[in-house]
Amino acid sequence: MELYDLELSGNCYKVRLFLSLIQKDYTLIPVDFLDGEHTRPPLSDMNPFKEIPILSDGDLTLRDSQAILIYLARKYGGEAWLPTEAGAQAQVMEWLMMAENEIARGPNDARLHDKFGFKLDQALAVKKAQRVLALLEARLESRDWLALDRPTIADIACFPYVALGHEGGVPVGDHPNVAAWIDRIKALDNFITMPEL
Amino acid sequence: MELYDLELSGNCYKVRLFLSLIQKDYTLIPVDFLDGEHTRPPLSDMNPFKEIPILSDGDLTLRDSQAILIYLARKYGGEAWLPTEAGAQAQVMEWLMMAENEIARGPNDARLHDKFGFKLDQALAVKKAQRVLALLEARLESRDWLALDRPTIADIACFPYVALGHEGGVPVGDHPNVAAWIDRIKALDNFITMPEL
Repeated sequence: MELYDLELSGNCYKVRLFLSLIQKDYTLIPVDFLDGEHTRPPLSDMNPFKEIPILSDGDLTLRDSQAILIYLARKYGGEAWLPTEAGAQAQVMEWLMMAENEIARGPNDARLHDKFGFKLDQALAVKKAQRVLALLEARLESRDWLALDRPTIADIACFPYVALGHEGGVPVGDHPNVAAWIDRIKALDNFITMPEL
Repeated sequence: MELYDLELSGNCYKVRLFLSLIQKDYTLIPVDFLDGEHTRPPLSDMNPFKEIPILSDGDLTLRDSQAILIYLARKYGGEAWLPTEAGAQAQVMEWLMMAENEIARGPNDARLHDKFGFKLDQALAVKKAQRVLALLEARLESRDWLALDRPTIADIACFPYVALGHEGGVPVGDHPNVAAWIDRIKALDNFITMPEL
């Protein structure tokens, strides 16, 4: 299994983190993002969206960090990280969708602007990031994990860009439930970190 | 089963459409969106994101149209619409993520601006919508359906806002593969339509 990777990408990091949590061996292939390696063949043939991470496992090539987490959980992670029962599975999926939408438009966009100089509406991204923090703070008021009574890929998908919020001007700050949830994730067996986390 | 619904929402429509395709009975509960019914209890307690659709099925309450499609497919739709095998399932998930991210930021945002007066960067939404059309056109060059060799919830999730693109200034236009794909979806047994489709 090969992961096409950028160390500073939160989306790549969440895949590396999950592979470590489930102790699955793989080959890391660093991508020269600044040189646009992901925008040219062979990578642009593997992923026409011209983004990373890309996961290659035998004949299968996958794009999108959330879809990759689903694949790894289903194939290698087992029931603990992504249940097969419809209701419980859908509760995990709700938070994968938050990672794909609200967190991408919020703390991820804010960080892309501040850290990497992307041209985008930073004030709007900060506003959306603050909404994300408020929603997570309320959700975690009376529970330890986002979707179920145990850590799942819902937590792994949402964690990186929330925990990197300070790099986009949206620190966790006075959200004690979110801060405690981040600490719980960092305390998981076989947790690995990334720069600035 | 109850679906809290807005007729003109493409996200609500994709749930109504899928329920029709699998011939599952449910109760439709129209929400007074203009009056902000979704922003107040009891709906804001059912979905703190203050959005619709919301699906209620027994003790389970779900937000997010993509998560709801996954639930319905897993529980009622069967293997045809969402396979359980990890690789095939992840290939479906890739396109659900496109619906949640690129299509939301593209044709959906463009329509929100033009049709409903949302304040957002319309030029950016149109640019992102054109990218969505280009990616779909290339994907559908040599295949009938987005994820697998049959229609899945990947197609149902991506279809509405692409087919409504003309309401946001991004008609399908000279994308014959996308147009043919839309026609194939419209020809499915038990297809139902929505206004302006």
